[in-house]
Amino acid sequence: MDFAYDGTTEELRKRLLEFMDECVYPAEEAFEWQAAESGWTAPPMLADLQAEARGRGLWNLFLPGEYGAGLTNLQYAPLAEIMGRSPRIAPPATNCAAPDTGNMELLATFGSAWQRDRWLRPLLDGEIRSAFAMTEPEVASSDATNIATSIVRDGDEYVINGRKWFASGAMNPRCAIFIVMGKTAQEGPEHRRQSMVLVPRDTPGVTVERGMHVFGYTDGDHGGHAEVRFEDVRVPVDHLVGEEGGGFAIAQARLGPGRIHHCMRLIGMAERAIELMCRRALARVAFGKQVAQQGVVQDWIAESRVKVEQLRLLVLKTAWLMDTVGNRGAHTEIQAIKIATPRDVEWILDKAIQVHGAGGVSQDFPLAGLWAAARTLRLADGPDEVHKRSLARRELKKYLTVE
Amino acid sequence: MDFAYDGTTEELRKRLLEFMDECVYPAEEAFEWQAAESGWTAPPMLADLQAEARGRGLWNLFLPGEYGAGLTNLQYAPLAEIMGRSPRIAPPATNCAAPDTGNMELLATFGSAWQRDRWLRPLLDGEIRSAFAMTEPEVASSDATNIATSIVRDGDEYVINGRKWFASGAMNPRCAIFIVMGKTAQEGPEHRRQSMVLVPRDTPGVTVERGMHVFGYTDGDHGGHAEVRFEDVRVPVDHLVGEEGGGFAIAQARLGPGRIHHCMRLIGMAERAIELMCRRALARVAFGKQVAQQGVVQDWIAESRVKVEQLRLLVLKTAWLMDTVGNRGAHTEIQAIKIATPRDVEWILDKAIQVHGAGGVSQDFPLAGLWAAARTLRLADGPDEVHKRSLARRELKKYLTVE
Amino acid sequence: MDFAYDGTTEELRKRLLEFMDECVYPAEEAFEWQAAESGWTAPPMLADLQAEARGRGLWNLFLPGEYGAGLTNLQYAPLAEIMGRSPRIAPPATNCAAPDTGNMELLATFGSAWQRDRWLRPLLDGEIRSAFAMTEPEVASSDATNIATSIVRDGDEYVINGRKWFASGAMNPRCAIFIVMGKTAQEGPEHRRQSMVLVPRDTPGVTVERGMHVFGYTDGDHGGHAEVRFEDVRVPVDHLVGEEGGGFAIAQARLGPGRIHHCMRLIGMAERAIELMCRRALARVAFGKQVAQQGVVQDWIAESRVKVEQLRLLVLKTAWLMDTVGNRGAHTEIQAIKIATPRDVEWILDKAIQVHGAGGVSQDFPLAGLWAAARTLRLADGPDEVHKRSLARRELKKYLTVE
Amino acid sequence: MDFAYDGTTEELRKRLLEFMDECVYPAEEAFEWQAAESGWTAPPMLADLQAEARGRGLWNLFLPGEYGAGLTNLQYAPLAEIMGRSPRIAPPATNCAAPDTGNMELLATFGSAWQRDRWLRPLLDGEIRSAFAMTEPEVASSDATNIATSIVRDGDEYVINGRKWFASGAMNPRCAIFIVMGKTAQEGPEHRRQSMVLVPRDTPGVTVERGMHVFGYTDGDHGGHAEVRFEDVRVPVDHLVGEEGGGFAIAQARLGPGRIHHCMRLIGMAERAIELMCRRALARVAFGKQVAQQGVVQDWIAESRVKVEQLRLLVLKTAWLMDTVGNRGAHTEIQAIKIATPRDVEWILDKAIQVHGAGGVSQDFPLAGLWAAARTLRLADGPDEVHKRSLARRELKKYLTVE
Repeated sequence: MDFAYDGTTEELRKRLLEFMDECVYPAEEAFEWQAAESGWTAPPMLADLQAEARGRGLWNLFLPGEYGAGLTNLQYAPLAEIMGRSPRIAPPATNCAAPDTGNMELLATFGSAWQRDRWLRPLLDGEIRSAFAMTEPEVASSDATNIATSIVRDGDEYVINGRKWFASGAMNPRCAIFIVMGKTAQEGPEHRRQSMVLVPRDTPGVTVERGMHVFGYTDGDHGGHAEVRFEDVRVPVDHLVGEEGGGFAIAQARLGPGRIHHCMRLIGMAERAIELMCRRALARVAFGKQVAQQGVVQDWIAESRVKVEQLRLLVLKTAWLMDTVGNRGAHTEIQAIKIATPRDVEWILDKAIQVHGAGGVSQDFPLAGLWAAARTLRLADGPDEVHKRSLARRELKKYLTVE
Repeated sequence: MDFAYDGTTEELRKRLLEFMDECVYPAEEAFEWQAAESGWTAPPMLADLQAEARGRGLWNLFLPGEYGAGLTNLQYAPLAEIMGRSPRIAPPATNCAAPDTGNMELLATFGSAWQRDRWLRPLLDGEIRSAFAMTEPEVASSDATNIATSIVRDGDEYVINGRKWFASGAMNPRCAIFIVMGKTAQEGPEHRRQSMVLVPRDTPGVTVERGMHVFGYTDGDHGGHAEVRFEDVRVPVDHLVGEEGGGFAIAQARLGPGRIHHCMRLIGMAERAIELMCRRALARVAFGKQVAQQGVVQDWIAESRVKVEQLRLLVLKTAWLMDTVGNRGAHTEIQAIKIATPRDVEWILDKAIQVHGAGGVSQDFPLAGLWAAARTLRLADGPDEVHKRSLARRELKKYLTVE
Repeated sequence: MDFAYDGTTEELRKRLLEFMDECVYPAEEAFEWQAAESGWTAPPMLADLQAEARGRGLWNLFLPGEYGAGLTNLQYAPLAEIMGRSPRIAPPATNCAAPDTGNMELLATFGSAWQRDRWLRPLLDGEIRSAFAMTEPEVASSDATNIATSIVRDGDEYVINGRKWFASGAMNPRCAIFIVMGKTAQEGPEHRRQSMVLVPRDTPGVTVERGMHVFGYTDGDHGGHAEVRFEDVRVPVDHLVGEEGGGFAIAQARLGPGRIHHCMRLIGMAERAIELMCRRALARVAFGKQVAQQGVVQDWIAESRVKVEQLRLLVLKTAWLMDTVGNRGAHTEIQAIKIATPRDVEWILDKAIQVHGAGGVSQDFPLAGLWAAARTLRLADGPDEVHKRSLARRELKKYLTVE
Repeated sequence: MDFAYDGTTEELRKRLLEFMDECVYPAEEAFEWQAAESGWTAPPMLADLQAEARGRGLWNLFLPGEYGAGLTNLQYAPLAEIMGRSPRIAPPATNCAAPDTGNMELLATFGSAWQRDRWLRPLLDGEIRSAFAMTEPEVASSDATNIATSIVRDGDEYVINGRKWFASGAMNPRCAIFIVMGKTAQEGPEHRRQSMVLVPRDTPGVTVERGMHVFGYTDGDHGGHAEVRFEDVRVPVDHLVGEEGGGFAIAQARLGPGRIHHCMRLIGMAERAIELMCRRALARVAFGKQVAQQGVVQDWIAESRVKVEQLRLLVLKTAWLMDTVGNRGAHTEIQAIKIATPRDVEWILDKAIQVHGAGGVSQDFPLAGLWAAARTLRLADGPDEVHKRSLARRELKKYLTVE
């Protein structure tokens, strides 16, 4: 047992920290101004930051294997954490932003040769963006068997009909490809009825209807969260990802890394919040003493530190398990970090906001926006309650087999 | 001891509930659409709703005494709760919306005859709106002695210099009058250095700079929350409210009713959330059963009901105390409801959001917006921590005198 | 709506507060010493306190109707609260201690004339004590249909077989009568299979086996919490309470008042805890300042006050409902106070303990013992979770009928 | 970074798990019976268990260096966790029980040659037991500068006067030696006024007055928690541990490992609680379904698992830090585990109790006793609040130096 990062990780951390200090933090204020003017696309300055990051060897760090930087999850985790300190800039600047990360990993793992050539390559180069269209407005989508969008084979084509929402990034015109989950069978085993198809944005019958808000935020610089209508949308059968009936399994495979990436970044968000909370508490005076000297504020700071240390270790161990025993073997831990991280980071952000007073809820600090992101992750990729139920059942099973 | 509402209250509750059913709830969807187009002003449909409410005798219900409906706090409380069920429409429709309510009460109590004639009358008629400019971006404003805006007498005028933010309603061009808190003395007893002056919006030197966001919301239909700069702003000395050095006392007097009104409406918001949570849980199926049958969801519903019942009783008792022993005598209870209500209602809203899944954080349900309002009230009008500190000291004093 | 106590209540409060100051608090230390020597019976000094209380007209205050003091629940509530400040002495001294209170009310309501004459009269006079034998070690007794003890009619007798535990008071040799819940039918409607019979302690086949501990406490002065075995125990058929199959309904009727009495006393326990917490915090110094000046301790004191005020109001309203619409009409509120009171008072006691340091968990302060009592009430008379489930279903039903 | 235990640890874990299965768990019931009869001493069966453990090479595992098993903290941690599953038997059976562990480490580190020969040797052999007398009833002892016991040099002797309580183990007649913290100077630097002396139990002037209770438990098998009076107690000057004025530093050094040992065992207690909770939930039926199928119970089980995984990792990392950068370098982490572990394990025990119903608070399951131990650790060795204050200050300092 050893709690020190390896040499590769330390070297990349150093390089990434320099990039943050030299390029990312100094860009934050201007990014906000540009974002306010950019509608559903990324601020123009992002392109320069991407070039800079790529030049520094900070590109596609999330992707294991031949197509990406080839890091293990355990090596990537502390880097994703650092990116999470400025989560609207650092991840896209390094081409490590959701949902593209998950989509690239999906294409690298399950995509056919031509799919990889046609869609993965430009994604790896940051030329296009992508969306993952799974959640539907009409059903409780946390139960994937509820998915109602139909994908019906008709000759050499699949015909898609349905309605999706919260397809993150899809409002962005540069978002060229949608991965759509739907039902190819109405019968058979419940988890073998779903399939995934690639649907280019410009396919007839695709209508990007509107951007969903998240606590008042549109997340426009990120491409928003779109509601999309699919009406008699036709794609050739070679647009199927993997095999027919494999949609559920692919979704599960995609969500494992996706969840841990979110959690890594959340920890960086929490560290940012603690820093802001401390600085503000030191800078303000109320009722005759520094806010930092208030016992209750000290209590929050201490609790925040204790929570973050625990979360980071659990995320790192989960990454190590994914590397050593595989995503399936790390299933319980992935659920555990998905339960613990968003809600604890939400708590920390709430306290940082409170220390900032009215400023904390406003656009003058990143805290309220980060809070909305953390809160949303308590229900995105499956609400906490679904993960807890599943984790509990696994725990209970230990004692069923024993007796 | 008797827990039944009196006849006047019951009659008004009935009338108000009818107004909600017949006019307010049916208007909610269109209100959103209009609000999205109305910038910093109220949607046009509000005028009709106001006329309707006034015609039904539902006007200025909040204001005790000769200028308003003459209800006691105990009588108004259950009405404010009902309004809180649709808090963006019902309060302004009945001319019972903050900050105008507090400003009207302030003018009715402390304003001179001409001030009442010039500003109170059009406010009572809903012709203009008003803002209360107290919080400052540069200092911890929860400690009123930190207020830095200067109000210096120069002959027959006061000269005002300073910067305020979160002046709710002030982005609205119809917001004609600002009540500004500042320092008229740099020496003397700490709580006698502040004064309040009336500053008409169009006075030279007044610059309404920008609207502050609250978790991504601009609250434009409400007139937003403005940052305002005062540079060598001059008003005649008769624009002083009350006496020089009386600002702190007036602010305290204003905040008592203001806080209880917020709490009353929050309870209505919580009831709305419980209703939405139940309806959604009954309407959705996941993992083979109704969401309403999930034990954890039932737990949330039960907790929500238990919390709301307790909050309502504490608010009602506080109203009764304000009526019977005065705002000062109800000081501890006012602090208690200010502490308990926003955070408990925030909790309920969070659970209602979770039951709604992704929809819960979006613009398709009122929950995320209500949540932002409840969260903000944990720091508006003084953060919880300040109230708790004060309440604890009062409790401790009981035992100091005994020993 | 009126939040003031009526004249009768105020007069009795005054009289009871004097009794507490003059007789109960001064007796506490000696009571502990005697209790340590008294095994399973009350300390000898209790008899004198009972005589004193009775002489002051403070006797059987809990019992409405002709047999008791004739107070309403609303009038009794604040008196029970006061008793709860010294819960091991004041309730038995005034013959208002559980489980005798519930048993007396049960006999007064459902007992036959001879049952009342034989058992109620000596209970009203404090000559004997009684036990309620419902919970069983072998089944989840929160679901009354699980009760397995059999009561089989055989000619003019009922034959009882089964095992009960946590029969409070039953270790005391002066506990002369057990009210035993069992099954008289194995078929028919689920809630009509249970009956209650009176079983005198000295009936052959009754074995009081041992006292159950509660977090290390035996509660010997209270008669402990007994495990009792019933083997072919025979009682005449006139020992049936009410009718055959009426056991469940009687249990429900008994538990309503029982639960509210517990909650009233818990509030008194909480007030005692707040007083002790404040006094200790004022008396100790750590790290250069009074513990009472620590922000976190002030936070606890404030939260405690806010919680107690809310709980008291909810309990009082519930009492008022029981008086005005009956126990059934107050069902939701009875559940609400049963959920909220033990856990909130437990929280307050926990904080009072923490302020006392090591002393807090010891026998030198009443806090740890009170804590154990509050904790146990989270599962006695049905665990919180059962009440929450039931309360949630009732809430959900509102929306089922509407739609 | 590597999360796997090393070979030594794995081998010892295996051996210890066998000892638990073969000797400890089977002895638990009889241990309770013997403990009930053993007053302030360990049950007689403990001697056999000690012989067995020693024979299996499971002895003094806690002690690094030449005198003990020579394990690192990181190697000992998972073993202490296993012992914590049966915390009243396994630690004393392996001579790894507090407070002897801390006292042995103290003597090994700071004791003179004769002190080690006279007291450490028999402790290592389990022939005697020892007590640590630090906490005083009259002062807030969490602030060590409050310690009032005086240690005055008089020629070749120290004269000790004072009163201590919660000296764990000291009621046991076999507890032969007390390590007493007191003040040797009334002036000079605040943390250089304290010293520690060894006081044999039979020294004239030592009076072991009474055993303090912990939530009704006497912990007699453990030697209880004594209040001890020191009146003109005289010991030769060679009974001083370390140097005069070194008491505070020694106490700090002692508390580091002591705290981590407690936390390791607490994690084992939590694992035991989860097992009991799952087994009970699977074994009982209420309202027509297994308790294990109740959503709320599943929620508790999941939360328990998530909490335990996080706690274990933080404890292990802290052990690793103590091994690699020393106790001082691990200061923040030691505080973090001291804050997080007792309260989270308390939470888990509370839920396990709730699932057990009335049985959970009784002597029939270990849960209530474990709960009392966990609760007490929230204030023993310094209350949480002191650790949080200190941890927060350290966090804040990061930003003081930066700016």
